[in-house]
Order: sequence, then C-alpha cells, then structure tokens
Amino acid sequence: LADKDADLTPSPKAVAWHGDAHTGRLELIDQTLLPGELKVLVIESAEAAWEAIKQLRVRGAPAIGIAAAFGMVVGVRDRLRAASASSVGDRSAMANEVAGYLKTSRPTAVNLFWALDRMLRAAARLSDAPADSYLAGLLAEAEAIRTEDEAMCVAIGKAGAELLPIGGGVLTHCNTGALATADFGTALSAIIHAHLAGRNIHVWVDETRPLLQGARLTAWELQQRGVPATLICDNMAGMLMRQGKVQAAIVGADRIAANGDAANKIGTYSVAVLCRHHGIPFYVAAPSSTFDLSLADGSGIPIEERTSAEITHGFGRRTAPEGVAVYNPAFDVTPGALIAGFVTEKGVIRAPYVENLRLAFG
Amino acid sequence: LADKDADLTPSPKAVAWHGDAHTGRLELIDQTLLPGELKVLVIESAEAAWEAIKQLRVRGAPAIGIAAAFGMVVGVRDRLRAASASSVGDRSAMANEVAGYLKTSRPTAVNLFWALDRMLRAAARLSDAPADSYLAGLLAEAEAIRTEDEAMCVAIGKAGAELLPIGGGVLTHCNTGALATADFGTALSAIIHAHLAGRNIHVWVDETRPLLQGARLTAWELQQRGVPATLICDNMAGMLMRQGKVQAAIVGADRIAANGDAANKIGTYSVAVLCRHHGIPFYVAAPSSTFDLSLADGSGIPIEERTSAEITHGFGRRTAPEGVAVYNPAFDVTPGALIAGFVTEKGVIRAPYVENLRLAFG
Repeated sequence: LADKDADLTPSPKAVAWHGDAHTGRLELIDQTLLPGELKVLVIESAEAAWEAIKQLRVRGAPAIGIAAAFGMVVGVRDRLRAASASSVGDRSAMANEVAGYLKTSRPTAVNLFWALDRMLRAAARLSDAPADSYLAGLLAEAEAIRTEDEAMCVAIGKAGAELLPIGGGVLTHCNTGALATADFGTALSAIIHAHLAGRNIHVWVDETRPLLQGARLTAWELQQRGVPATLICDNMAGMLMRQGKVQAAIVGADRIAANGDAANKIGTYSVAVLCRHHGIPFYVAAPSSTFDLSLADGSGIPIEERTSAEITHGFGRRTAPEGVAVYNPAFDVTPGALIAGFVTEKGVIRAPYVENLRLAFG
Repeated sequence: LADKDADLTPSPKAVAWHGDAHTGRLELIDQTLLPGELKVLVIESAEAAWEAIKQLRVRGAPAIGIAAAFGMVVGVRDRLRAASASSVGDRSAMANEVAGYLKTSRPTAVNLFWALDRMLRAAARLSDAPADSYLAGLLAEAEAIRTEDEAMCVAIGKAGAELLPIGGGVLTHCNTGALATADFGTALSAIIHAHLAGRNIHVWVDETRPLLQGARLTAWELQQRGVPATLICDNMAGMLMRQGKVQAAIVGADRIAANGDAANKIGTYSVAVLCRHHGIPFYVAAPSSTFDLSLADGSGIPIEERTSAEITHGFGRRTAPEGVAVYNPAFDVTPGALIAGFVTEKGVIRAPYVENLRLAFG
C-alpha cells in the first residue's frame, strides 16, 4: 500500500488562499500554460479574478465557484481599502457590486452563481459585524466552500469508483480533476479512486478540442497519479468503442437541470450518443452545487460561445484560412435520457431524474 | 449564370504533369503547408514521390493513386537513366521494383494499389515497345488515370448534388475536394455541384483532427469556390445535429469492402453513428477505384497508425505532457449498415450492398 499512498501526493492546488483575510493572498495556477509551465498567479483584485475565470486560467465548474468566492474576498477587501467610508450600507453595496461583476465572467457553470450567492448570504449575515470580522467572515465562508468541495470530491470519487469496470476501459472528456475542483476532482476522482482501489482500469483521455484540457490537464494529472492512460483525439472515441476498448464513460458537468439534462464541455453530447449506440454506460459526476433545479430542462442553460481564434489559431499558428466562418460553442447539453446515473456526494442518482433529483437536492 | 461560372475556376491542381515523358516533370502542391503557403514541389524520383505520399504532402485516396502513377513514370525514368543496360527484362524488373516500393508508402487507401497495378499492366503491354515509346506509354497511362478521375469527380458531383437537401445543412469530414482528386473531388464535388445548382446549402466543416485537413484544406477550397461554410471542431457535430442544423452528411472513402464497410479518415465512424441517432442520411462518395471487392468486409482493411507527435505536437508546440501514451489511428471503418448510399460515377448505389456493389463493380 506504500506505493499507492504515494499516488495521493496532492497536485498543486488550482485555487489556494495563503494567510489571513487582511494580508493573505489568493493564488491560482495559470492552467492555460500547462503542461509546459507551472505558473502560480497572485490575484489582487476582483478584476484579476474575473480575467482569470474568463480566460480559463482557472476552469472547471467547482474550481470556478471556489475561485469566485475567494475573488469576492479580494474584491471586497480592495474596495474597502479604497473607500473613504465603509458603513454597513457601503459594505453591502460593495459586496453586491463585486459579486454581480464576477458573475459576468462566464455564463454556463452554475457553481459560479451558486458560490457568489452563498458569499452574498454570508455577507448579509455579517452586515453588523465589526470591521475586522467582516472580511474574516467572508474568507471563512470561501474556505468553507473550498473545504466542502474537497470532501465532496472524495465522496464522489468513492461512489463513482464502484461503477467503473474492473479491468476495463474508461473514457473521459475534458478535465474534471484536482485542477477543476478543490482536490481529486469529480469524474477524475472516480477514476483515481478506482485506480487506488486496484480496479485495474485503463483511461482513454479525449484531448478535448479546442482548448485541449484533456491533453494538457487530464493526461498530466493522470500521469502524476500513476494511472494508466492513453491520449486520443475526440473523434477516435467511436472507433475505440466499436473495438470493445471502452466499458464506461464518465464526465463532469457545468450545470444540470431538474430533468437531468446536463451541460458540459463541448463534445460531451457526442460521447453520450456514441455510448448509447454501443450499449456503454455514460455517467456524469458532479457535486450538489452543479445541480440547478430552477431549470426544468437543459434548454434554459445559457451556452457560452467563445472566440473563433480558439479554433483557427489553436496551436500557436493559423490553421484555417483567413476570414473563415467559425462556430465555437464551449458547451453542449446531454439529455438526461442518455445518462446512466449521476455520481454525487450523496451517492449515485438514477432515473427517473425529475423525481430523484428533487428528492436528493430539492 | 456568369457569377456561377466564375466559381468553376479550378484550384491549383494537387497533382500535375508538365511536358513529355522524357523531359517533363511531376508537380505536387505541398498540402502540409496549406492554407498558409501555396508551395509546389517538383518530384524528381520515386523516393521523393514516396516521401510526399507518406508525409501527406499529397493525400486523399484518388490523388494518392494519381500521384503514385506519375511517381512511377518518374521512378522508372530515373532508373532507366541510371542503368547501363535497359533490356526488356531490366525494364520489367525496374517497373516492378518501383511499383512495389511506392506501395509501401501508405497502407489504407486502395487507390494507391489500384493505380500502381494498372501501371504495371500498362508496363507489361509495353514490354516490347521501342525504348522511346516505353516511357511515353507509361505517362499516357498515368494521364488516363488522372483524366478518368476528373470525369468521375464530375459524375459523382452531379449524382451526389441531388441527394443534398435544398436549403439545408450538410456536414463533411476531412478533405475530399480538388486537393484530394484530379478535380472537384468526391464528397466535396457533390457539395460544390449542389451549390452551383442553386440548392442553397450550408456546409459544416469538421476540422478533422489531428492533421486538420478540414480546417486547412476543405474550408480553403469552399472559400475559393464561394460555398457558404462554417468550420467546427469535430466534437461539435453532435450538438449541431441535435439543434437541427444538419440534414445530410457526406464524406469520402479510402477503401470500401464488398459489404459496404468503408474505411475513411478517423472520426468518420463517429459522424455516421451521430447521423444514425438523429435520423440524418450519411453518404459516402467515391470512384470505382476505391471499391475493393476482394475484401468481404471492413475487418480486412489495414488501418494505418501514425506518429504520436501528430497529436501531442499538433501545430508547432507541445500540447500534452512528455511521455504520455497516445493512440493515433489515421482511419476508422464505418459499417455499411450506417451508410445511406454510395455516390459513385455510376450513380447512387443503395443497400443491399453485397449484391448491388457486385452488380456495379464486380
């Protein structure tokens, strides 16, 4: 077991806070530079946090929520320092302004809104607190969000590991690991826990165009953890399934509606359809903060469209003709009907989703 | 109609011969540099032709066959010049040696073997010809292969155009245009002829990882021809189909077995499965030289695996961790059962394929 324990050495944290609320600092790994360079950014303002989320320096639905929560501490601190007055009313306005601003960074992952709304509720509870305690209270709430996510990652990992085929192939898409969460990840936590439990799985890693989170981040995390894995282009998944090399697929999610429709990284829906065609179970792993039961179905989930340059200049040089029209949605929605189960910190939730998601999270 | 005629201006030829058999030269567009640079290579030896095919400087099943046929003229000429004697027996040995060598360049596209075998039959017919006529006869055979392909491209284009939905969306994968053939292409010929016939289609172009033939070549050809088109990542096709934006898919093929199983660029099979799930017709366009009725089904088609660097260093920089395991098949096989019809120079061939392909090409 000694070797297996070594695998538990944590990766660098995607999001970390060092020090107290007044003098401490928010640090993010700049994930756009991985795996070539491991650079840690110090985030000193709400604007810097917004930019880091927008530019995918920090990404992954849970990590976006955590970064935004800490970003709110930094942003409110910054504004309190700059303000000549800081009455209770001022503080409340500042908190609302910072949260509202951070919410404009990315539209799809509900964890962003969930975390910022939770921070606003904490701010409201702290409204009468002494000036010294106000920021400390906000930081404590952000730390709670991070710590709870850590625990959820482990719970998801343990629940998901049991779904993965002993000695089988597991396909995943995008990055759902420690870099996307407080630790271990969601879908990748299930994969890592299956590996640690000796289930002898082999992971097929979709590279995940256009931004290659699978190639750059998931392949890197699995290599660090010693999990056997092979990198493929997204368009090879169907062939692998036809060859009998994939026994399960597991992915994360950015927002899940009340009927189980799940938004996740573009390409997820195609994986789900391919799984259905080949009779392979397709699982979605996500913490409760990713479920948005206020939406009846996936049609209400806003889908972010990103710049065409991500496709035409993906690898540092132009790979498409000048002036070409491009469509670049960052997410797609997989209907609940294609999902074999949701792996959550409360266990595996099966269809019928309208009923069972309400029971779990309603 | 004047504007439409302007669209017929030919692209630079992927493969061209200039001059006579003794002093003429073989020219290829180096397609690895497109669309950034339009560079024409002069091919002076069988070795240079082999390298150009191997490195995908010339690619696309029909164009590979044509380039190999001209490459054989160049290779035999080169060896005749170098040889001290050139008896009938020497010539035959040389022709066999050059053809055998060129056949080792790539394994999947049957057009390569088909064209070289046809050149060998011409060489055998010419065995008693005077020295002057021998090379001229080989060149005439290569020119015949090219000219026949040109005619087949037009016939395929006209037959395929009628299958494409008026005012609808058409998805294609990889490059099957003028760059892949003698002119117009196969699947892309159908698309171009549908456009010229005023069918008002919109083309969705899969970028086609890893080598981006869709982004680099198909988007470029459609832009030159004035056909409305939008570039997407391969993993976006499913979402587009779910959104109702795709009414047909049409692709090429590298080898088609007697039962209709079709090898084509990796990712084609996933497109076919996605089409089946969404009730969208999926067509394969190919000339008769792509059908290999000696194979009962697709399991006999050799699938080329290429270097991992195509995935890990796609376009000039590393985008995956050092030492990562990679699987990089260049082709996959789509079962005939997923194919709505084959568009050939003899018209559209429908299932049952075992019977109808034998009737057409047996």
